[in-house]
Amino acid sequence: MQPFVIAPSILSADFARLGEEVDNVLAAGADFVHFDVMDNHYVPNLTIGPMVCAALRKYGVTAPIDAHLMVSPVDRIVGDFIEAGATYITFHPEATQHVDRSLQLIREGGCKSGLVFNPATPLDVLKYVMDKVDMILLMSVNPGFGGQKFIPGTLDKLREARALIDASGRDIRLEIDGGVNVNNIREIAAAGADTFVAGSAIFNAPNYQEVIEKMRSELALARP
Amino acid sequence: MQPFVIAPSILSADFARLGEEVDNVLAAGADFVHFDVMDNHYVPNLTIGPMVCAALRKYGVTAPIDAHLMVSPVDRIVGDFIEAGATYITFHPEATQHVDRSLQLIREGGCKSGLVFNPATPLDVLKYVMDKVDMILLMSVNPGFGGQKFIPGTLDKLREARALIDASGRDIRLEIDGGVNVNNIREIAAAGADTFVAGSAIFNAPNYQEVIEKMRSELALARP
Amino acid sequence: MQPFVIAPSILSADFARLGEEVDNVLAAGADFVHFDVMDNHYVPNLTIGPMVCAALRKYGVTAPIDAHLMVSPVDRIVGDFIEAGATYITFHPEATQHVDRSLQLIREGGCKSGLVFNPATPLDVLKYVMDKVDMILLMSVNPGFGGQKFIPGTLDKLREARALIDASGRDIRLEIDGGVNVNNIREIAAAGADTFVAGSAIFNAPNYQEVIEKMRSELALARP
Amino acid sequence: MQPFVIAPSILSADFARLGEEVDNVLAAGADFVHFDVMDNHYVPNLTIGPMVCAALRKYGVTAPIDAHLMVSPVDRIVGDFIEAGATYITFHPEATQHVDRSLQLIREGGCKSGLVFNPATPLDVLKYVMDKVDMILLMSVNPGFGGQKFIPGTLDKLREARALIDASGRDIRLEIDGGVNVNNIREIAAAGADTFVAGSAIFNAPNYQEVIEKMRSELALARP
Amino acid sequence: MQPFVIAPSILSADFARLGEEVDNVLAAGADFVHFDVMDNHYVPNLTIGPMVCAALRKYGVTAPIDAHLMVSPVDRIVGDFIEAGATYITFHPEATQHVDRSLQLIREGGCKSGLVFNPATPLDVLKYVMDKVDMILLMSVNPGFGGQKFIPGTLDKLREARALIDASGRDIRLEIDGGVNVNNIREIAAAGADTFVAGSAIFNAPNYQEVIEKMRSELALARP
Amino acid sequence: MQPFVIAPSILSADFARLGEEVDNVLAAGADFVHFDVMDNHYVPNLTIGPMVCAALRKYGVTAPIDAHLMVSPVDRIVGDFIEAGATYITFHPEATQHVDRSLQLIREGGCKSGLVFNPATPLDVLKYVMDKVDMILLMSVNPGFGGQKFIPGTLDKLREARALIDASGRDIRLEIDGGVNVNNIREIAAAGADTFVAGSAIFNAPNYQEVIEKMRSELALARP
Repeated sequence: MQPFVIAPSILSADFARLGEEVDNVLAAGADFVHFDVMDNHYVPNLTIGPMVCAALRKYGVTAPIDAHLMVSPVDRIVGDFIEAGATYITFHPEATQHVDRSLQLIREGGCKSGLVFNPATPLDVLKYVMDKVDMILLMSVNPGFGGQKFIPGTLDKLREARALIDASGRDIRLEIDGGVNVNNIREIAAAGADTFVAGSAIFNAPNYQEVIEKMRSELALARP
Repeated sequence: MQPFVIAPSILSADFARLGEEVDNVLAAGADFVHFDVMDNHYVPNLTIGPMVCAALRKYGVTAPIDAHLMVSPVDRIVGDFIEAGATYITFHPEATQHVDRSLQLIREGGCKSGLVFNPATPLDVLKYVMDKVDMILLMSVNPGFGGQKFIPGTLDKLREARALIDASGRDIRLEIDGGVNVNNIREIAAAGADTFVAGSAIFNAPNYQEVIEKMRSELALARP
Repeated sequence: MQPFVIAPSILSADFARLGEEVDNVLAAGADFVHFDVMDNHYVPNLTIGPMVCAALRKYGVTAPIDAHLMVSPVDRIVGDFIEAGATYITFHPEATQHVDRSLQLIREGGCKSGLVFNPATPLDVLKYVMDKVDMILLMSVNPGFGGQKFIPGTLDKLREARALIDASGRDIRLEIDGGVNVNNIREIAAAGADTFVAGSAIFNAPNYQEVIEKMRSELALARP
Repeated sequence: MQPFVIAPSILSADFARLGEEVDNVLAAGADFVHFDVMDNHYVPNLTIGPMVCAALRKYGVTAPIDAHLMVSPVDRIVGDFIEAGATYITFHPEATQHVDRSLQLIREGGCKSGLVFNPATPLDVLKYVMDKVDMILLMSVNPGFGGQKFIPGTLDKLREARALIDASGRDIRLEIDGGVNVNNIREIAAAGADTFVAGSAIFNAPNYQEVIEKMRSELALARP
Repeated sequence: MQPFVIAPSILSADFARLGEEVDNVLAAGADFVHFDVMDNHYVPNLTIGPMVCAALRKYGVTAPIDAHLMVSPVDRIVGDFIEAGATYITFHPEATQHVDRSLQLIREGGCKSGLVFNPATPLDVLKYVMDKVDMILLMSVNPGFGGQKFIPGTLDKLREARALIDASGRDIRLEIDGGVNVNNIREIAAAGADTFVAGSAIFNAPNYQEVIEKMRSELALARP
Repeated sequence: MQPFVIAPSILSADFARLGEEVDNVLAAGADFVHFDVMDNHYVPNLTIGPMVCAALRKYGVTAPIDAHLMVSPVDRIVGDFIEAGATYITFHPEATQHVDRSLQLIREGGCKSGLVFNPATPLDVLKYVMDKVDMILLMSVNPGFGGQKFIPGTLDKLREARALIDASGRDIRLEIDGGVNVNNIREIAAAGADTFVAGSAIFNAPNYQEVIEKMRSELALARP
């Protein structure tokens, strides 16, 4: 099993000083930068695109950038994020009719690829592409909206995804996004997640380091 | 005729320190902040959305923010930009089938409204909504792509739009966007524009103030 | 010029007893039944479709039924309304890319055809199809929403459409829809309209006949 | 297991006197009013929308109204049906990419929520939302067209759905729609359905009560 | 004015021996090969794409190939036709929201560019792109369907387009497509067309050369 | 199990002499003509449509034509292919929301029906329509692009599909498409396929008969 990774979602950061925010959260102990891309079509919101990703790289961010595409269609913008310096590029299988092709595009561009599953979306599609994903992201809220609570049924779904990954023997991250905080991160990790997106839980806290350290303490208890 | 306005497009600014960039360009003499919204559907690019606009307001920007929506459909996201603190909200008539309704939505939200015309788009629609627009924006390049040159035929179109505005007797800004720089701004102003979007011409220069001052000198010559 | 026609919009009638409502309004002096079809795509509302139209015919309604299609695409459903017994079928030119073909389909089905113009939509398309329309409908509110006021600029547009019809020498009805009531119908008629859609002005009144008679009195004054 | 419910589809009623029809069918022993909403996009037909639902409530109908949305997208119109007084609101998982969110919207609006499965659509999505549905509707014909026969394979699918409901221990209705009549209702009930939509079988019969009573007699035999 | 050009539409040729058909029709005196591309979206038909165009080039066809794109969107497939060896590439302005950009793409690819106007589509858009078109194609039937008759009103529209071309002083072809035959070609030429698409009139005739020669005789009379 | 069938994809044939090519490949021992239809929407390519299919029939081709629709939506064009003389018509379940209905349309038109599965698409939908398919086609590359290699994971998927067919006891062909050649056809047959699409492997070879015979020799070894 892979080491735990904390991936603050910059959707909750201050967009007026994004470079500084990212520097601070990484200095506070975060591992990845989670980058939420919404296009006002796949979800009813429009956030930030490849130019913002490229700006972070130019600013000096060297940590992995984990770009979660809440867009449809998928393929054209994948190239933009490859050029913009994304490390992971994940997308929703419902957002394209050619899942295998999109996964190939991402890897051919030198990035790590992944699939994202909405709360109600079955995991079946994984069966045929386990050799083409580096990350599986389960949404524990509905994407496109802030301020939602963790959907409890996601714990079972995490166990299901964890079993698929273990059975494959592959090196695939299992990420969780939505309503993750200090109080539930341990239980979520126990269900199989190893990569944790947290937005407001970190960026709305007075001290990023304190929250991240608490999360790590909780995580330490999840894998005895 | 309205006083000249220089509206730097933050699409060419450094997104990692956007607040600082906007502060600097306003301190250097800019009047408006031009905010380019692309949704990867109306144009093949995705840029920045309402959360970034709101962040600028929270950061302390008080200058007019002039949001140019290169999105389709239009109506739902209009509400987001009203809440985010936009001053002007402009959209393309081809991007909606209910132009009059979208213009009303913007004004009912307390913002100034406007229409944007692609290089090949006729101005006919203006005939029926001159009383509902505060700004007419003519694209002098095709939206969605950087690094294009000013399309010369736009000068005639500016004269056409200027005549419509003058005939209406209304207080409507005539904005131009695409390939504007120190060398052509005077001719563009002479053709009738009063509001000038400039991206790379300003943000790629070593000294913002110097460029803006040169633009103003040129503009002073356009209205003897 | 054609005789005046009053066409109550059944959108404001009681859908639980539609046959009776239509009987009553016709008995009260109405000429046409105006039938508003919305598909939740061209406009953000879904109303009634061809089966309701057919039910009115089966119920015994023999007055002209004037079906206004606020739908996109147009062509497939045209056949449904031909079979359902519509007399006029009108649609929006923005809702199809083959305006001439849709007009032909309607006439080939034995119905009268027409085009509807949103408040901001230019009339240019008429130039090439004046020989294929039996009705021109100008929207004086934005379609898809109730409770809006008559847009004053429509009066000029009515005069423009009236001039086109007169110049053509053809027998084409000029219909107006949106915010028409006893107080403004005379002015609207004076601007050139001959067919008047009224919804709440009639169906929300305690006495349909009284309203329709008042409208006729006003109309009588419009053509001295 | 829940008591049997007979839900006549008003698509086969007389739309010219819908209130009276609904009164009659309820007086004849029906339990629910099944309300078929088609938008000419998800299915190639356009029927009736929220205003007709609201009219039935205003007319005095107090029985549960079971609105089956054959529309895409789903979310915006859900609000219309909540306001219009629907009791159940069901939709097709293929018609939205955010199934969990749409289900939540319905319940937050105070209505009962459900999912509808086309003949070929797998039930997998249920796995993650069994706690968010009050009804599962299996189509035994293809939606959007009348006059089709019951697809026999639906009996196995009913048994599959029944097993899922029983395993969940939850209070979820299992509804069947398409080609249900006096001759096959007993077998359908035996396969697990508890809620029966019937259109022409009831409304085309000379005596509604007689048909409904025959259906109940058959149903009584299905659960010995 | 440019010399007359006869452009047989291969849509009426025998697709089982297309190379031979094209050889024959060129040997019989045709000038261009008119290539009709339909995508089952912009028009309800699907015909032939870039691979067929490339096959004709590989087969040895050196005459100009005039590709008429009845597709939406336009831009991606333009590149395919540039590579496939098209000479002219024309498209419908309604089929894209970035007309100027698509015209530029075609010319940058080394092809000649053009716009196609449906029977009811106004010519307004030409005003701003006359310097970017090498051909204007007026449809004299509705595209996507065979066996239609020449729409008489197109003669006036031809005169309108001819006046625009003459006023521009540019070298722009004026093409006509739909219902052209030996009996009406003279009148069509007199109205201003210089390029004539003919499908069944040529390919359904027993002797291609005889038809083309008759057309040329008629054309000779149109320009005395 | 059904006898082996070799189905050359005419996408790799010479479109300038398609009749001759098809004659040759059938004379060389091929069984079916595989006909790839792409619409530039479901896949980013546009190939050939029903008129080309009809031309082959008129030319004299009597072998089964196996039309693989890479189009969305599906239903309207199904009728075109029925009239054009297709034998099999297969489509992708993601390309329509009414899989059962489309399958019925094909059979009602007198053709054999089938479903096509992209590399990542689960087979679940088959569960409910095994009685309505005559062919199951597994894509072993992503459709819409040439020159791709056989995806090895398809072998397991073939075994899965084969088990479903065998369990059903029905007479259903199991076809494979993508990267099939002399070197891998035996292994593919061993995994359960009985119908083999091959494009460049046959049409790019100097001698069609030689390749097909080698394929048959390999196939003979797959079923001892």
